[in-house]
Amino acid sequence: MALNGVLRPGHIQLRMLDLEEGVAFYRDVLGLEETGRDDQGRVYLKTWDERDHHSVILREADESGMDFIGYKVSSEAVLDQLEKAVQEWGLETRRLPAGELMETGERVRFTIPTGHQFELFATKTLVGNSVGQSNPKPWHPDADRGIAPLRFDHALLYGPNVNDVLDLFTNVLGFWLTEYVTLPDTDVKGALWLSCSNKAHDIAFVEHPNPDRFHHAAFLLESWEKVLRAAQIMAVNDVPVDMGPTQHGITRGGTIYAWDPSGNRFETFQGGTAPYPDWGPVAWTWDGLGEGGGLDVSKRILHESFLTVVT
Amino acid sequence: MALNGVLRPGHIQLRMLDLEEGVAFYRDVLGLEETGRDDQGRVYLKTWDERDHHSVILREADESGMDFIGYKVSSEAVLDQLEKAVQEWGLETRRLPAGELMETGERVRFTIPTGHQFELFATKTLVGNSVGQSNPKPWHPDADRGIAPLRFDHALLYGPNVNDVLDLFTNVLGFWLTEYVTLPDTDVKGALWLSCSNKAHDIAFVEHPNPDRFHHAAFLLESWEKVLRAAQIMAVNDVPVDMGPTQHGITRGGTIYAWDPSGNRFETFQGGTAPYPDWGPVAWTWDGLGEGGGLDVSKRILHESFLTVVT
Amino acid sequence: MALNGVLRPGHIQLRMLDLEEGVAFYRDVLGLEETGRDDQGRVYLKTWDERDHHSVILREADESGMDFIGYKVSSEAVLDQLEKAVQEWGLETRRLPAGELMETGERVRFTIPTGHQFELFATKTLVGNSVGQSNPKPWHPDADRGIAPLRFDHALLYGPNVNDVLDLFTNVLGFWLTEYVTLPDTDVKGALWLSCSNKAHDIAFVEHPNPDRFHHAAFLLESWEKVLRAAQIMAVNDVPVDMGPTQHGITRGGTIYAWDPSGNRFETFQGGTAPYPDWGPVAWTWDGLGEGGGLDVSKRILHESFLTVVT
Amino acid sequence: MALNGVLRPGHIQLRMLDLEEGVAFYRDVLGLEETGRDDQGRVYLKTWDERDHHSVILREADESGMDFIGYKVSSEAVLDQLEKAVQEWGLETRRLPAGELMETGERVRFTIPTGHQFELFATKTLVGNSVGQSNPKPWHPDADRGIAPLRFDHALLYGPNVNDVLDLFTNVLGFWLTEYVTLPDTDVKGALWLSCSNKAHDIAFVEHPNPDRFHHAAFLLESWEKVLRAAQIMAVNDVPVDMGPTQHGITRGGTIYAWDPSGNRFETFQGGTAPYPDWGPVAWTWDGLGEGGGLDVSKRILHESFLTVVT
Repeated sequence: MALNGVLRPGHIQLRMLDLEEGVAFYRDVLGLEETGRDDQGRVYLKTWDERDHHSVILREADESGMDFIGYKVSSEAVLDQLEKAVQEWGLETRRLPAGELMETGERVRFTIPTGHQFELFATKTLVGNSVGQSNPKPWHPDADRGIAPLRFDHALLYGPNVNDVLDLFTNVLGFWLTEYVTLPDTDVKGALWLSCSNKAHDIAFVEHPNPDRFHHAAFLLESWEKVLRAAQIMAVNDVPVDMGPTQHGITRGGTIYAWDPSGNRFETFQGGTAPYPDWGPVAWTWDGLGEGGGLDVSKRILHESFLTVVT
Repeated sequence: MALNGVLRPGHIQLRMLDLEEGVAFYRDVLGLEETGRDDQGRVYLKTWDERDHHSVILREADESGMDFIGYKVSSEAVLDQLEKAVQEWGLETRRLPAGELMETGERVRFTIPTGHQFELFATKTLVGNSVGQSNPKPWHPDADRGIAPLRFDHALLYGPNVNDVLDLFTNVLGFWLTEYVTLPDTDVKGALWLSCSNKAHDIAFVEHPNPDRFHHAAFLLESWEKVLRAAQIMAVNDVPVDMGPTQHGITRGGTIYAWDPSGNRFETFQGGTAPYPDWGPVAWTWDGLGEGGGLDVSKRILHESFLTVVT
Repeated sequence: MALNGVLRPGHIQLRMLDLEEGVAFYRDVLGLEETGRDDQGRVYLKTWDERDHHSVILREADESGMDFIGYKVSSEAVLDQLEKAVQEWGLETRRLPAGELMETGERVRFTIPTGHQFELFATKTLVGNSVGQSNPKPWHPDADRGIAPLRFDHALLYGPNVNDVLDLFTNVLGFWLTEYVTLPDTDVKGALWLSCSNKAHDIAFVEHPNPDRFHHAAFLLESWEKVLRAAQIMAVNDVPVDMGPTQHGITRGGTIYAWDPSGNRFETFQGGTAPYPDWGPVAWTWDGLGEGGGLDVSKRILHESFLTVVT
Repeated sequence: MALNGVLRPGHIQLRMLDLEEGVAFYRDVLGLEETGRDDQGRVYLKTWDERDHHSVILREADESGMDFIGYKVSSEAVLDQLEKAVQEWGLETRRLPAGELMETGERVRFTIPTGHQFELFATKTLVGNSVGQSNPKPWHPDADRGIAPLRFDHALLYGPNVNDVLDLFTNVLGFWLTEYVTLPDTDVKGALWLSCSNKAHDIAFVEHPNPDRFHHAAFLLESWEKVLRAAQIMAVNDVPVDMGPTQHGITRGGTIYAWDPSGNRFETFQGGTAPYPDWGPVAWTWDGLGEGGGLDVSKRILHESFLTVVT
């Protein structure tokens, strides 16, 4: 099949300093729907248009950040194959039992070279979106509740060894490189955008000395006008904004970066390219990232916070 | 790799009653770029953002319509595999030599059960888009020349035996069904939307007694506002409009259908869902197509011309 | 003062065949706020962004249509002056007492040559909009409740003697002509767009043999994207649509015409020019109205219903 | 008449350090049309949609800034009246002869309390916009040439005595106050937005110790999407951006502030409220201007440059 193997970002587990404050934020401001709570006290959420049972999981902890990120694969057989391939590449993997995450089958977890917990899974209950699969209506009130993104779209992770990650993701997991940035005065890749579909990115990495750092989780909006609406709703709710509205030159996405109540960065974005692997990646120099507008088309600077503030 | 096999619509060859009139239309009104002419007199065009040498080929003929549509596959090895698989499914195939289409490798052509000439190919010269692959700028004057779509996105074809086509495309070619319409008072599928990516459709079919009928070629715009701009440019150029601006319930795309100077329908559209195969298809009844807004969210009728006017 | 005399459309009273059905529609689908009911059983509504106590009044009656339309003037002194001027022009006027409409001062009413009840008033209670006048927030949930227009913007009325109305409105009431259409093969004006501000229109008239006919009341939206959202909300609520989404060449407004449950046409529109009186009017021929896109930029036809269906 | 007296901003004369560089910028990047040059070497420009002969005049000088700003009034009689009224208010006025500015009648000039040269005029040649006044088409290529604003919309001026200016503009010139900001911990107005129409502002002032300072000239775009396109065109042309894209809480306008090649700030903005004088002004505190999002809905800070960088 044309689209198989690793399909899409399936879930991300984020740590909240105050769980209920976090739930209130992701539910009422971002506009996700709470779909369950488990006996560990974790809270599960999804967007109005997602079909899977959940895409965001919140857990209370003493420090913010990301526990793990999981990608859905096309079948249990593919899960087995990828598990072996990851082991052959040299990583230890472990199986988390079905049900450890609500409504989710077995997951294969491993630590990628940037230090992040990464997992694959083949099974999660399809609960459907707000408009259903049969003669769906073109609009639903849920699509106007809070910022109301369409989907959890991707994450950007910071850590060491991004070029090892590039090898793992492209040669083992079936991702492909859509865009990259080379470090100043070198041809060494320091930032990667990787796709497992024809999205501009399903995951991205930036080289950073500290392992397992979380930069942001991104949520997709329908339009540039919805990005402005997101800014307005952030203003009404006193959400601190890091950057935007602006457009990234990289991926062409219209964007706002902001922080959740625990200090985890999230992105509300729209648009972006729809590239194909045979095009080859778009190459950005370090200057292209900054003054070339790779990060910020409008300001054309390398925002300090983009490089340094992670959780 | 997560995205392989059949990748995307690669080209469509359309018949023009008056070639230069057609070229002028596709170049100056739709805003494509002419990239070459061959010794058969055919004219090759691409959008400003496409990387491949061409996506639209125009040929002069006594009657309008589509000669063939071709899809790019991920490698020559895949081309060989798919050729065999198509033969095993029971269709004759033939190889067109490299260079028969400009800057294009060998093509494998076969007649699908709806009567259309369908082809696969693995190689076409990458000529790049207007902004390039290295530190691209966020805007280029070409993006404002005429209607200026991003890409040739899909085609809708009419003919008999669409359920055989469904079998061929899903079980042999690796496409998957994103949405469908059942015929009145039956559960027989009469209209299919098929994807080989996570686009809402890479090709679509409607059951029709006459084989090899062409409904429309669709070109992607960035936004609903660009759809209005397309309507304005059509007005200035006296382009006859069939339907729109409106939104399809099916695929959620914002749309205008209009006719080129030879009477071939084309679509300028934006948006649309980004589905995944594991979601299962969205099902529309015949009433859902009409009064349910599947075709036209605003009017909620089954436009007569949609079902009957083909070339 | 630069802006004085007649300021803006202040209210329109519409007849509902079923009052509560009408209230439900204007409140829940169009998204107005109910602000009061009087002892005649009339229901008062306003948009979330209007400051005045009401702009739409609904009354139950055996046939649909408009009872009267009222415009706010800048002071009671101006009201007195305009009353006299209207009398001098040859119309009888009468005073309706303060309080006859809730929270509204005395109104001067007269029958204009097209047969419509037209009134002027200087006083209506300012109740403020949803965000207030002091450090207003940039967004409010009310702005997403239903179609949620910004304001009642204008009305289009059909009747005889529109050229007498032109004289009355421009020479007595201080309006000015922004655009007009001449009747086929004549230079006689058959349709008028009139402004008392620098809006594209505060009121419009079309020549029609029957007096006192109501074509539509128009409600302003922020953007073309909001027009699409209006179409979606209409679809979900089975609101019959007359025309659109499209753009008028006249006034450049993006538009949908649809019908309320009693068969009164309303418009949800956005944009439009911001003309000035010294520019002189934009002139449209009858052909310009139709095939020139004056009515419908996309279809470029003179929709039959536009000329014939009135209440 | 409902709209009379001072009608609109008519022209602004800006000083360029290098005239041809400035002309190239306003013509090719901002997208104005050059309409003439006079024997002083001044260059005249207008937007594609303006009817008057010019709205921007560029002059070469050793330092940047604004020479004067002029407003069109509704007649020569009104010009005479306002001249007298300004004199009675206590300012000296002088007449500049017809033709001193190309295609412009006599102008009445005076120095307002903030130190700026302000002028009124009743006559300027109407040259028409790109689509004309008769059956205009809905689109013209000029509307896509550069940033391509609809009109010169307003200016923001810095200087002392803004409360005297408030008295002059509201009690003599017929403007009215739409919004204002009070200085920290006082109820003294420190920033004013003034309208002579039902635009959110036709001119604005901020209290500043130095007289005759120029903050920005603003040009109106059709939509928030056009604001993004402006950012993209600025990026391609290396135009330094001060702030935006964002939205002002004040006036609700979507905005970018940037600098022309001589360091004069300009604004490309869209939207904004359409207030009326009887609503009373929207009141902002100093905190409302900053953390309340009055200046910047997204960042909710008082950008240092907004208060300090003027020419």
